[in-house]
Amino acid sequence: MNLNFASDNTGPVHPKILEAMVAANAGAAMPYGNDPWMPQVTERIRDLFDWPEAEVLLVATGTGANALALAGLVPPWGSVLCHRIAHIEEDECGAPEFYTGGAKLTLVDGAQGRVDPDALATAIARTGGSVHNVQKGALSLTNVTEAGTVYALEDLHRLTRTARDAGLATHLDGARFANACAALGCSAADMARGFDMVSLGGTKNGCMGVEAIVMRDPAHHWEMQLRRKRAAQLWSKHRFLSAQMLAYLEDDLWLETARSANAAGQRLLAGLRKVGADMDWEPAANLAFARLPRAAHDRARAEAQYYLMDEAERPLCRLVCDWTKTDAEVDRLLALFAG
Amino acid sequence: MNLNFASDNTGPVHPKILEAMVAANAGAAMPYGNDPWMPQVTERIRDLFDWPEAEVLLVATGTGANALALAGLVPPWGSVLCHRIAHIEEDECGAPEFYTGGAKLTLVDGAQGRVDPDALATAIARTGGSVHNVQKGALSLTNVTEAGTVYALEDLHRLTRTARDAGLATHLDGARFANACAALGCSAADMARGFDMVSLGGTKNGCMGVEAIVMRDPAHHWEMQLRRKRAAQLWSKHRFLSAQMLAYLEDDLWLETARSANAAGQRLLAGLRKVGADMDWEPAANLAFARLPRAAHDRARAEAQYYLMDEAERPLCRLVCDWTKTDAEVDRLLALFAG
Amino acid sequence: MNLNFASDNTGPVHPKILEAMVAANAGAAMPYGNDPWMPQVTERIRDLFDWPEAEVLLVATGTGANALALAGLVPPWGSVLCHRIAHIEEDECGAPEFYTGGAKLTLVDGAQGRVDPDALATAIARTGGSVHNVQKGALSLTNVTEAGTVYALEDLHRLTRTARDAGLATHLDGARFANACAALGCSAADMARGFDMVSLGGTKNGCMGVEAIVMRDPAHHWEMQLRRKRAAQLWSKHRFLSAQMLAYLEDDLWLETARSANAAGQRLLAGLRKVGADMDWEPAANLAFARLPRAAHDRARAEAQYYLMDEAERPLCRLVCDWTKTDAEVDRLLALFAG
Amino acid sequence: MNLNFASDNTGPVHPKILEAMVAANAGAAMPYGNDPWMPQVTERIRDLFDWPEAEVLLVATGTGANALALAGLVPPWGSVLCHRIAHIEEDECGAPEFYTGGAKLTLVDGAQGRVDPDALATAIARTGGSVHNVQKGALSLTNVTEAGTVYALEDLHRLTRTARDAGLATHLDGARFANACAALGCSAADMARGFDMVSLGGTKNGCMGVEAIVMRDPAHHWEMQLRRKRAAQLWSKHRFLSAQMLAYLEDDLWLETARSANAAGQRLLAGLRKVGADMDWEPAANLAFARLPRAAHDRARAEAQYYLMDEAERPLCRLVCDWTKTDAEVDRLLALFAG
Repeated sequence: MNLNFASDNTGPVHPKILEAMVAANAGAAMPYGNDPWMPQVTERIRDLFDWPEAEVLLVATGTGANALALAGLVPPWGSVLCHRIAHIEEDECGAPEFYTGGAKLTLVDGAQGRVDPDALATAIARTGGSVHNVQKGALSLTNVTEAGTVYALEDLHRLTRTARDAGLATHLDGARFANACAALGCSAADMARGFDMVSLGGTKNGCMGVEAIVMRDPAHHWEMQLRRKRAAQLWSKHRFLSAQMLAYLEDDLWLETARSANAAGQRLLAGLRKVGADMDWEPAANLAFARLPRAAHDRARAEAQYYLMDEAERPLCRLVCDWTKTDAEVDRLLALFAG
Repeated sequence: MNLNFASDNTGPVHPKILEAMVAANAGAAMPYGNDPWMPQVTERIRDLFDWPEAEVLLVATGTGANALALAGLVPPWGSVLCHRIAHIEEDECGAPEFYTGGAKLTLVDGAQGRVDPDALATAIARTGGSVHNVQKGALSLTNVTEAGTVYALEDLHRLTRTARDAGLATHLDGARFANACAALGCSAADMARGFDMVSLGGTKNGCMGVEAIVMRDPAHHWEMQLRRKRAAQLWSKHRFLSAQMLAYLEDDLWLETARSANAAGQRLLAGLRKVGADMDWEPAANLAFARLPRAAHDRARAEAQYYLMDEAERPLCRLVCDWTKTDAEVDRLLALFAG
Repeated sequence: MNLNFASDNTGPVHPKILEAMVAANAGAAMPYGNDPWMPQVTERIRDLFDWPEAEVLLVATGTGANALALAGLVPPWGSVLCHRIAHIEEDECGAPEFYTGGAKLTLVDGAQGRVDPDALATAIARTGGSVHNVQKGALSLTNVTEAGTVYALEDLHRLTRTARDAGLATHLDGARFANACAALGCSAADMARGFDMVSLGGTKNGCMGVEAIVMRDPAHHWEMQLRRKRAAQLWSKHRFLSAQMLAYLEDDLWLETARSANAAGQRLLAGLRKVGADMDWEPAANLAFARLPRAAHDRARAEAQYYLMDEAERPLCRLVCDWTKTDAEVDRLLALFAG
Repeated sequence: MNLNFASDNTGPVHPKILEAMVAANAGAAMPYGNDPWMPQVTERIRDLFDWPEAEVLLVATGTGANALALAGLVPPWGSVLCHRIAHIEEDECGAPEFYTGGAKLTLVDGAQGRVDPDALATAIARTGGSVHNVQKGALSLTNVTEAGTVYALEDLHRLTRTARDAGLATHLDGARFANACAALGCSAADMARGFDMVSLGGTKNGCMGVEAIVMRDPAHHWEMQLRRKRAAQLWSKHRFLSAQMLAYLEDDLWLETARSANAAGQRLLAGLRKVGADMDWEPAANLAFARLPRAAHDRARAEAQYYLMDEAERPLCRLVCDWTKTDAEVDRLLALFAG
């Protein structure tokens, strides 16, 4: 049994999505987004988000979606407020700085990987002012957070309201948007409310490589198309992005795979508690950061793959369940930990 | 019959490549280039290019491959010499400028879409010098050219020698590398000789979306990996790039599809001459720019798709044969033109 | 006698300007443009340009004025149309590309260093279009041109009208704005008409180092202030920029020094014709490009300083008269040439 | 009496420096650093720093010196470690991000405005690693700090050693380099030891507008010259930068003005303690952040200028003594506070 809990992106593509890609391969199709599937993608997302005028651009990487969205919202002399452990800060090798032309990521604290409302207010108050300062730009939140926790809807909306009241734009890094909706039992529209742009992830949740940049305000559309092309993120055989995303959204497949991943994550969580793992962050979806007994880790490492965040006496392990994880796989990992 | 001669990227993915992608979908695989297929890709390209130490990075777009390669070769204050109609100048919305941090594309003339050796020497002599000037950077050539013509090997090597002797780096935009090899009947190693980095295209020639940046000197590798990530061009489910490229290179599929496209292109060319088309540029591979009688264009336009470069009395039409074009399709298009 | 004809920036500061700087040194003054002289500068320029709402920013270098103005007018994916020999293309080491975030300078031909109206129309028609292309940005003209020629007002206005009708912004590189006004006998308002932003030069014409960015539309003001600061072009002891510019504009000193330089230039021109110099470009202000007999150059080089543009049998010499050049100096240079 | 305690850059130019500028105005001088004073500046700084091979570039603003130095030391994907309140973080509107092409400023904590050694070690350990992360770049320290405190030499050297051992480059923001030397009674060479590049300030300490970028390793020289030009920081009438800096360094004028400013600062400090001011940071040079009784501030504000950092019940006031501040001025300010 190949026990790969390293990331949700180690998982395969969902058969329905792969089939849709194969089906889209028949004959010729116009390139660069002029394929027949793309208008359907836009329509579907408008419905899901209840944003009737939204425009949608597809790219192949989550970093690309985030960096482009931020570049569309924040000038080079602007600030992007985000949590200290946000993906845009920690895991994108400065892509947001590159795409924005040098905007500044200003880090905000908060327990459980969630931006603290008071810390946000303080950070906003400290941003901007005179010509010597970087100016107010955007708030970027992540749900599911990089800590594996989830923002409650009311917390999310409170934060975006604070930002908007201060004149900031709002961006949601939704690499695990589906997992957050599944965890909260809320709609996509509920999750998107309060944001100007959403990076709607597909890759981690059963797609091959597709993310949607969803812009509530269509006024951004043309500039964002230019930015996408200039950033070399515009696919020529774009139909394979469109077909992926369309299949992903059809019949709520996106929710189905997310629920599956979350269910595995919660089964894992329950088991981790039994084997004596400590967790500083409360896992609410499909990833957990668990501090394990050394012996548990030593037993599992030969058979299972996951990232080790440190090598302490009780090593901190990052365990992610992609949408394919079965009860048997989870139980086998737990059995290895239990010894 | 869907007569799509708009571009080689309107064509489908080759079944063998699609099958390889489907096969790669089994189970988990490590992300970001750590999949088992990638080392094979590198080995295969080292062999093909006869560059035993070369390093290879895969990205999903040709613009990305070009822009990253140039960024690795040219500082922000450097100059990129290229033909006036190069793709990097005309069709990438400034991606090279974005990726390089503002390097300057300096345009060189030359008949048939090919850089003229004397014009190159003059341009090099005019580049650099004092601190007030943009400095010598790189020469970027394209083969097959954007005009549909091909450089003979000796012409290519003469140009790269001139550039290297003057201290410039050399880059080949090989979006149609395979078509050029097929047209010349030469090896990949012959084509790559004299270049520091090659953008080896797959997308236009039967892949879904994959291009290889091939670096002769492995000293570039780490910086280029950082640049790729920072540019949001590093795929998480990278196995689908590796598997594509591997299938593309296996059993010389890349040459097979290119020969097929070129054969269609040459059949089209012969027919165009018969229907009274004028061609300023000598088509040598799979694309032609033909000035057609107005009536010919009017007859074809309802049934066939291709780009119109201008709307003159004798409109200039860009006709591209992707790897799937059959004799029947070419003949049907010619029949429409002939009336 | 130190015969320095190398550039107008080899000349000294006009005594009245130096005195104004010394006078401004009394006591404390608030920094960053909040000195008492700056509002007067703005008022004076509004009057001179007949732009009642214009805003003005001062910087210390002409390259800075040009690069900032272009960055305020053109997005990173925009094009700057300029003459092939424009200073922004040839002598700023890519500063416009740096400041704009990678906009593309598109070169336009034209005799006598002046943009040709038809070539401009063609270049505009070729700019923009689809998402693959760099988009329409700005036209940047230079008067006095880098060739030492001058645009007649009607030619200038025809070009800016063409640009504006096509939706381009318009910028004037006025490093020798005063010399152009003096040559044409026109007002500053006449010269500025048709432009959105003007780089109004002081340094070459008797100042120590100050250039004004004049924005017709005050809507640019705040963003341009941020750009200036971020580009490290905002002086802390700004009073010394303000005081310079104010003294320069007072009692038409700017015109007086320009007339002096132009008179020397015209005396030089008359003499050059007598000593057998060839001039491809018609010098209309204070600089000339003269192809001299080799012997003439050999006689002069030990005593006189000027730039040699090439080392041909008849070397091409760039001869510039700054505002201090006396008849005696000009005549001495001519005597050396005459032998 | 004009009581301006707003900043050291509200002060005038020292008469000796102004005289040197006036003297440098005689006749013609070659531009762009080719004036006869510049080699003497380089020699003088080599001696002062005991860096026999150092190269020096002059610019007119401190932000320019910092941003250029960092751009020369850190790639776009690198990190600049600095104190949370560093000028490069708080007061340059993102100039370091602009000049470096988007490097990331990583903030380090520490009491008294000084980087804490343990916090630095932790920050370094967290930087770099995989391709997903911003890589190790440089440590940038400021002495005198933005808090008005001073690093002891051994603390400075410990920090630079830690950085260098980890492969980071080291930069000193020396906007108040002279004040730090004066406060510590150390030599310039002592202060510079351990740094790769130093921004040696002149503007705040009696110059009009000149800062030296001092590079220990001459290998940086050519690239830095290109960067300076491209950033529009290369003066054409450069002699006025050279002459300023030369006069500033002559006969230790730089130390004399700094001692004068520091003495005023210490007199002010002693008085502030008597009027009941609270100071979180220990002022060691010429600037103090004092929390004053509301009534004291209310009495002083009509007559004296200084920046208010907040409007709390006991407002936090930033009080800076430039090199001209007399005992009488300091005493008058204290008298206003005392009531």
